[in-house]
Amino acid sequence: MKASQFFISTLKEAPADAEVVSHRLMMRAGMIKKFGAGIYTYMPMGLRVIQKVERIIREEMNAAGAVELTMPVIQPAELWQETGRFDKMGPELLRIKDRHERDFVVQPTSEEVVTDIARQELRSYKQLPKNFYQIQTKFRDERRPRFGLMRGREFIMKDAYSFDRDRESAQLSYQTMAQAYRRIFDRFGLRYRAVAADSGAIGGDLSEEFQVIAATGEDAIVYCPTSDYAANIEKAEALAPQGPRPAPGQPMTKTPTPGKSTCAQVAELLGVPLATTVKSIVLATDVLDEQGAVAQTRIWLLLLRGDHDMNEVKVGKLPGLAQGFRFATEAEIVEHFGCKPGYLGPVGTRKPVTVVADREVAVMADWICGANEADFHLTGVNWGRDLPEPALVADLRNVVAGDPSPDGKGVLAIERGIEVGHVFYLGTKYSRAMNATFLDEDGKPKLFEMGCYGIGVTRLPAAAIEQNHDERGIIWPDAIAPFTVVICPIGMDRSEAVAQAAEQLHRDLLALGVDVILDDRGERPGAMFADWELIGVPHRITIGDKGLKEGVVEYQHRRDSAATRVAVGEVLALLKEKLGV
Amino acid sequence: MKASQFFISTLKEAPADAEVVSHRLMMRAGMIKKFGAGIYTYMPMGLRVIQKVERIIREEMNAAGAVELTMPVIQPAELWQETGRFDKMGPELLRIKDRHERDFVVQPTSEEVVTDIARQELRSYKQLPKNFYQIQTKFRDERRPRFGLMRGREFIMKDAYSFDRDRESAQLSYQTMAQAYRRIFDRFGLRYRAVAADSGAIGGDLSEEFQVIAATGEDAIVYCPTSDYAANIEKAEALAPQGPRPAPGQPMTKTPTPGKSTCAQVAELLGVPLATTVKSIVLATDVLDEQGAVAQTRIWLLLLRGDHDMNEVKVGKLPGLAQGFRFATEAEIVEHFGCKPGYLGPVGTRKPVTVVADREVAVMADWICGANEADFHLTGVNWGRDLPEPALVADLRNVVAGDPSPDGKGVLAIERGIEVGHVFYLGTKYSRAMNATFLDEDGKPKLFEMGCYGIGVTRLPAAAIEQNHDERGIIWPDAIAPFTVVICPIGMDRSEAVAQAAEQLHRDLLALGVDVILDDRGERPGAMFADWELIGVPHRITIGDKGLKEGVVEYQHRRDSAATRVAVGEVLALLKEKLGV
Repeated sequence: MKASQFFISTLKEAPADAEVVSHRLMMRAGMIKKFGAGIYTYMPMGLRVIQKVERIIREEMNAAGAVELTMPVIQPAELWQETGRFDKMGPELLRIKDRHERDFVVQPTSEEVVTDIARQELRSYKQLPKNFYQIQTKFRDERRPRFGLMRGREFIMKDAYSFDRDRESAQLSYQTMAQAYRRIFDRFGLRYRAVAADSGAIGGDLSEEFQVIAATGEDAIVYCPTSDYAANIEKAEALAPQGPRPAPGQPMTKTPTPGKSTCAQVAELLGVPLATTVKSIVLATDVLDEQGAVAQTRIWLLLLRGDHDMNEVKVGKLPGLAQGFRFATEAEIVEHFGCKPGYLGPVGTRKPVTVVADREVAVMADWICGANEADFHLTGVNWGRDLPEPALVADLRNVVAGDPSPDGKGVLAIERGIEVGHVFYLGTKYSRAMNATFLDEDGKPKLFEMGCYGIGVTRLPAAAIEQNHDERGIIWPDAIAPFTVVICPIGMDRSEAVAQAAEQLHRDLLALGVDVILDDRGERPGAMFADWELIGVPHRITIGDKGLKEGVVEYQHRRDSAATRVAVGEVLALLKEKLGV
Repeated sequence: MKASQFFISTLKEAPADAEVVSHRLMMRAGMIKKFGAGIYTYMPMGLRVIQKVERIIREEMNAAGAVELTMPVIQPAELWQETGRFDKMGPELLRIKDRHERDFVVQPTSEEVVTDIARQELRSYKQLPKNFYQIQTKFRDERRPRFGLMRGREFIMKDAYSFDRDRESAQLSYQTMAQAYRRIFDRFGLRYRAVAADSGAIGGDLSEEFQVIAATGEDAIVYCPTSDYAANIEKAEALAPQGPRPAPGQPMTKTPTPGKSTCAQVAELLGVPLATTVKSIVLATDVLDEQGAVAQTRIWLLLLRGDHDMNEVKVGKLPGLAQGFRFATEAEIVEHFGCKPGYLGPVGTRKPVTVVADREVAVMADWICGANEADFHLTGVNWGRDLPEPALVADLRNVVAGDPSPDGKGVLAIERGIEVGHVFYLGTKYSRAMNATFLDEDGKPKLFEMGCYGIGVTRLPAAAIEQNHDERGIIWPDAIAPFTVVICPIGMDRSEAVAQAAEQLHRDLLALGVDVILDDRGERPGAMFADWELIGVPHRITIGDKGLKEGVVEYQHRRDSAATRVAVGEVLALLKEKLGV
C-alpha cells in the first residue's frame, strides 16, 4: 500500500470531549470519526485494525468448531417478548417501529434469535453440540456514551452461542470456548487476564471475563501473584478471618463525635485506626401483595469494617435479599433507628432490624459504631455482651490487596482491567423461556443447555491503546497494527536512489505478504515520523540519500528510543526475523 | 471442512410465501432463514456465498484505488435534514428516536455521512480524487418486501462514493469504477450486461446498471446483438422513423365502437392492425401559488401508437412536464374532453389541451382515435387536415424488439435482467446541498464533483440463482459457491478404504487451497446427492468401495447429466485443471 492511495488524516489536538487516552489517540490518528454520541465511522486506518481483530477471532472460532452466520440487526419484537426482555430491559434496548407500526429492536445481543434458530433447526441430539457465532453491528442506547469506542452505542461484537444436550456437554463447550479465547487473546499480543466472574442467578463457576490489563481500566481485577487465581472484584471471595474473636477489653462508652458522620472522620477524631470502626448500611426488602402493592417491608442493617466497601453482588445473593433489595429511605431509617444517617449502629435500635455482619466484623472486639443519636458514637462495642450475635455472618465486602487468596496459595493483588471478552454458561435460561427443545436419545424433548461468548470487536482496539501508548502516540502489537511496517523515504521526490530503494523494499515486503505502507506523500521527515508514531505502526524503515551512499537504511521499532543502522542488503532478513515471516 | 463440523439444513418443500425460484431454493438449501417480512438471518451456507461475493468486491475495489471505511448503521437525522432527504424520502426511510427522543435514521445509503466526511477531511485539491467505500448493513422499509433476498428490508450493500475537483476528473473516477465493476462481475462468473441507465436530473450519460441476465428478471434490458449498445428500458431511445409522413388517403369518419374503449378492442372490431390506432393519455401539471395552493392546472394529451407503452422517465423530461406531472382526474378529463376516458382523442376537445405526439404518431396518416363521445371513434384522422400539427413531437415510448438501435448498428432485442449494481455520476447534488467544498489550486472553495457506486451484496446470490438453477436445485459458479468441491463417500462408516481415500483427497484439496467439504454425515447416497445438488456445489467427487477396487472414483460437474469415472491417481490433476489451481 502506498500512502498516496490510502487515506491518512492526523490531528495535532484531540477534541475536547475525548477524555481517555485511547479516545484521544484514535481521534488524533484519524481512526474514528464521531457522528453523534457514541456513534462513529470507522475510518480507513481504524477499520484495518478492526478487520485484523475480526480475522483472528474468525480463524480461532472456526478452528474451535463454531459455525458463522449473520443474524439481523433489526429484530422483530415477538422473540424478545417471549423471553420478557422486550419489557424488562431498560432504555438501553433501542425499540423501534416500522412503517406498519410493528415493534422491532436493534440487536444489543442475539440470544432470542439464535435460540429460535436452534429450536427450529436443531431437532435431534445427533445435531449437538453446535455453536453459532456472528461478527455483527450491535446497538446499546447508553445513557451516557463516552470514551470513544470504549463505551459507544453502535459497536461491533462477536457473539457466539453454544447448544448442548446436557450440562456436562455444555461445560465442555464452555471450556472449548474459554480455550479458544485464550488463543485469540494470545494472538492479539496484549497483556490480559481471564478472571472468574459472577454468574448471577445461574450459579456455578462457569463465567470468565477476559480483561486487558491497563492502569486506566474501569474494572478492578483481583489476582494472586503466586498462583493461578484471578477474579473480578464482584466475584473474588473475602475469606473468613483465621482465629477466634478476641475477648472484650473495653467497656461500651457513648462518646461525643459532633459533626463526624463518617468512619474516617470518627477514626481521626478519636485517634484510632479506621479498621476499628464499623459502618452501618441500611437496606430494605419489600414483600408485595397480590395487587403489587407493598404489603410488608423488612429493614436490614449490614455491618462492614470502616475501611471496607460493600459488594452488591455478594449482598444480592444473601438469603432474604436475593429477590431484590433497595437502600432504605431516610424516613425508614428514622423510623427504625430513631436517628438520621451518619450515627447509626446496631445497639439500641428503635425497632427491630435484621443485623448482617461481614465476616471481618463478626470477629472484631472493642469496635466503634454510631450510637443511634446525632453527634454520638459508641466505642468498645462487643458482640454478645452489648448486643446479640448477628442474625447472619457473610462475605459482604470487596477484597482488598493483601487479603488471603481464596485458593490458599498466597495473598491477593489488585490491578485495573478493561473487559473485552466474556464466556458464560447460560444453562436453560433462554431455552426454558422460549421452550427450545430437541429430541434426546430417549425420544423425549429436552431443553438446550446453552452458553454465550462475546468479544467487543471495536472495544478491543481502544483497550489495546490504553495498554500500549506513550506520549507520542499508539504502539500497536504487530498482529492488530493497521500496518506492520512503514517505509519512510526522506526526499523521495528529489532522490532517484531513495525512491528506487523504497519502492524495491515495498515490493519485496508485499511479496512476503507483509502488511507494509510506503509513505510517498512527500511530507518533511519530522511531520512524517510524528504521523507514524501517532498512528503507532510498530516497525519503521527510514531510507535517506546519505545513508544509501554508505549502503545503510535505518530500522526503528515503535518502542525503541533510537534507530539502528542496517546494511541495505540485510534489511529484509532483519524484518523477516522481527516479524517472524 | 467436514460436514459434521458445519451446519447443513435442507428442506424438501419451500415455505408457501416463497414466490420466486431463488427464494425457494435459498430457503430449501438452508441458506437463509426468515425473521419477519424482508428480514433474514444469513445461515452458515448462505453466509459463505455472501462472504465470497464481499471478498471479490473488496479486492477489486482496493485494486481500483478505493479506500474502505465503515459508516454507522444508525445515523443522526441532522445530516439527512441538510439534504432534505429526512423529510422528502418516503416511509422506506426508517426513522427512529433514541432514548433522548433525538431523531435518527437506519441507513438505506450513506451519501450524507460520506459527504460530511469529505467536507471535513478533504480540504485541498491535493487530496483528490478520493473514493470511499463500505460493505455494510442497510435497511429500506419496503412496503411489500418479498422474493427473499431480492427485495428485503435489511440487506448488505457495497456503496462507494467518489470525490473529485472537477467534472472531467469525476468522469475519470466514474470510468474507473465502471471498469472495476466489469472485473467484479466477470469474476462472479455470471452472464450480465452493463446497460446505460437514466441519470435523472443530473443529465449526461454517466449512469450504468449492472444487470444479471435472467428470464425472471424484473427489468427489461434493451440491447443490440450486432453492436455494443445496451440500455435499460427507461433509457433506450426510440429513434424517429425514417421517411416522410404519408399523404392522407381516407376521409375522417366518425365510427360507432360501442363498448370498445381500448385500442386493442377497436382494432379488433374494425379489423385493422393495432398499429393504426392511437391511444390518448391525459396528464396534468399544476402551478402552485405562494401559499402552495394550486393556482393553475394545465392539461396535456399524449398520443402514442396503440401497440406502444408510455415511458414515464422520458415523459418526465419534456419541457413543461419536467417539474412534475400527474395523471389527470376523471373530472378534469370530462371538463376538457366532454367525454369519459375510453373514447378520448385530440380532435374537437371541449377545452384546449396541449397535444404531444410520439415520434411514431407524428408521421402516421389515416389513424384511429377516440371521438370524444362515448362509443365512438374517428377513423382516417390526419394531421394538418383534421387537426393542427401537435404542439410537441417527442420520444414518449418504450422501445420494442425490432426497433432500430440508437447507435445505428442494427435492430434492438430485449431480455430480462436483475439489477445488482449501479454506477452513477452525481455531480454536485449532495455537495451543493451540504456546502461540501475543498480549496482548489486557485485558493478558492469549490464544490466536490461526486459519483456513487452500489452493489447489492445480498441480492447478488439471489440473482445468481435466478440465472443458474435446474429442477434439482442451484448451480453456483465456482467463484461464489459455498463450497467449490464436495466429496461424497459412499458407506464411509463401513469401508475403511472409502474413509481413507475420502480423507486423503480432502487433505490434498485443502492443501491446494480449494474450498472443499467432505460429507461425513453418513447419509444414504440418494439423500446425500440430493442435498448437494440442491445446495449447488459445482464439483462433486463420489468415492465408493466398488470403484476403489477398480481404482476409480467418480467426478460430476453440477451441470453434467452423468458422472465420469476417473482413476484415483488422476483425480487431483483433473480437479486442478477444472478449478484452475
